[in-house]
Amino acid sequence: MNALTPSDDAQKAYLDELIAKRLLLPLGPPGVYGRGHVFEDVIERFDALITASAVDDHAERMRFPPVISRASFEQSGYLKSMPQLAGSVASFTGTQAEHMQLLELVHEGKDWSCCQTMTDVVLTPAACYPIYPTVAAQGPVPAGGRLIDVYSYCFRHEPSGDPARMQMFRMREFVRLGAEGDVLPWRDRWQERGLALLEAIGLTGANAPANDPFFGRGGKMLAANQLEQKLKFELVYPITSVEKPTALLSFNYHQDHFGSIYGVKQEDGQVAHTACVGFGMERVALALFKTHGLDPALWPEAVRARLWP
Amino acid sequence: MNALTPSDDAQKAYLDELIAKRLLLPLGPPGVYGRGHVFEDVIERFDALITASAVDDHAERMRFPPVISRASFEQSGYLKSMPQLAGSVASFTGTQAEHMQLLELVHEGKDWSCCQTMTDVVLTPAACYPIYPTVAAQGPVPAGGRLIDVYSYCFRHEPSGDPARMQMFRMREFVRLGAEGDVLPWRDRWQERGLALLEAIGLTGANAPANDPFFGRGGKMLAANQLEQKLKFELVYPITSVEKPTALLSFNYHQDHFGSIYGVKQEDGQVAHTACVGFGMERVALALFKTHGLDPALWPEAVRARLWP
Repeated sequence: MNALTPSDDAQKAYLDELIAKRLLLPLGPPGVYGRGHVFEDVIERFDALITASAVDDHAERMRFPPVISRASFEQSGYLKSMPQLAGSVASFTGTQAEHMQLLELVHEGKDWSCCQTMTDVVLTPAACYPIYPTVAAQGPVPAGGRLIDVYSYCFRHEPSGDPARMQMFRMREFVRLGAEGDVLPWRDRWQERGLALLEAIGLTGANAPANDPFFGRGGKMLAANQLEQKLKFELVYPITSVEKPTALLSFNYHQDHFGSIYGVKQEDGQVAHTACVGFGMERVALALFKTHGLDPALWPEAVRARLWP
Repeated sequence: MNALTPSDDAQKAYLDELIAKRLLLPLGPPGVYGRGHVFEDVIERFDALITASAVDDHAERMRFPPVISRASFEQSGYLKSMPQLAGSVASFTGTQAEHMQLLELVHEGKDWSCCQTMTDVVLTPAACYPIYPTVAAQGPVPAGGRLIDVYSYCFRHEPSGDPARMQMFRMREFVRLGAEGDVLPWRDRWQERGLALLEAIGLTGANAPANDPFFGRGGKMLAANQLEQKLKFELVYPITSVEKPTALLSFNYHQDHFGSIYGVKQEDGQVAHTACVGFGMERVALALFKTHGLDPALWPEAVRARLWP
């Protein structure tokens, strides 16, 4: 568990409400919950609203299980920047004698990781990860680029009492691959589209906070920060804290990072640029319940009309 | 990879077709695939058909992420019978120096499991597993029992070239909890309902094979086998092999096994009995594509009318 912070009381109070109403079903570890039917229905309706709002984009739908290959994950660079969030999958591959040892350790409540061997898969850290090697394997991206629609459970090992910081959550993403001129304007347009989508369901006042440049270490660091701001921004909304609002949507421009790693090429042989927009589905649902109340039947008519058309 | 068996040629040929049509999108390890939009659409339509066929049962819908708590998994007994199929989740919890070591191992292509610590979650082995502790925590099951509807990705570590034997696949399940008299007839009725559901989509000739009793080791073994046959049966259908048909649905009566382990009680204080019926969603889709062809637009009108009503 994380150390307590001042906002923890509000988070705990909201989590307790969600559990009491059986919107979330606690499974034991912090941040690991089942979803009651009312919660799940809201997720499905918001998912359908995203689909409807982007129908004219004609994205290609692909769906992936919540694991990717360990080999492609190792290539991704994720272990460099966020090793503590990643989840690798291990399994038992031993002999019958080792099986006895495994059962003894479990029986005694001891660590049985010695009886586990790493498998060829890891949990998906973000819904877009399996896209890049998949698209690369299908050949060069045609002129005008490609647009892929993905949706999967993702894992982040950050046990927390904040209901908006789950270890297993769903991310719906659109991923654009092509020339910089295809990718960057598409990503930027989504900031407005994302805001409009949230406003349509009564989540007004979400914004993309301007990160203060960090002056302390001089121009080089400042430039790096500014560059970073151009690469990534988020729409944040207060769920349990106004001071520390939660990111509901995130917009990332990867330049040619993933294109280079996985060999995604443009028609002319140049490395493809990529960008994505991701919706934190559970977070949007939590923002809806926080804003409009725990019973969707009592939500404002305008909001209901958008979600249950 | 498994050793080659005679049916492997047919399996490989079918897998190659599925990949060529982009119905399945290979992610590298055998049995780990993304799903193209046509494949996914069939899964969604069959899921909706199950829902429609069981609408009068008024099952309570719960949805769980593809992990359960390690503690409840250790209680389940799964590690006794099928340790080689289970997937535990590990993460990096080390120091900055250990992070350097991790990156070096990855860079050198070496095993980095030494830099991973077991987390509090494991991958879900079957969709019903999170139900039992969840229902137990909600108090005694009322007279007449409860009926729960679940659906999730499940993991089984059995790398295979058989497209019907995936490492990550979806299982839709109904789980009945209550007195033996509620649970067992409900499970038995589902054998006919399951057959009718498969026939409605043109998967005729599925059957529940009678396992030959094993006489070799005398009466005790025979009795144990017969008992086992009453506890579990499956509807099998030929996908890539007539001799070794694939289980599409499975029907399990757990007696008071899970009730005892997780403390699921009936209203009168007795331990609840449980049973489940599970649909192997990818396997049903694979059976449909094998039977009716790889283009759902060309499937028989009667089948299309049921799936796309």
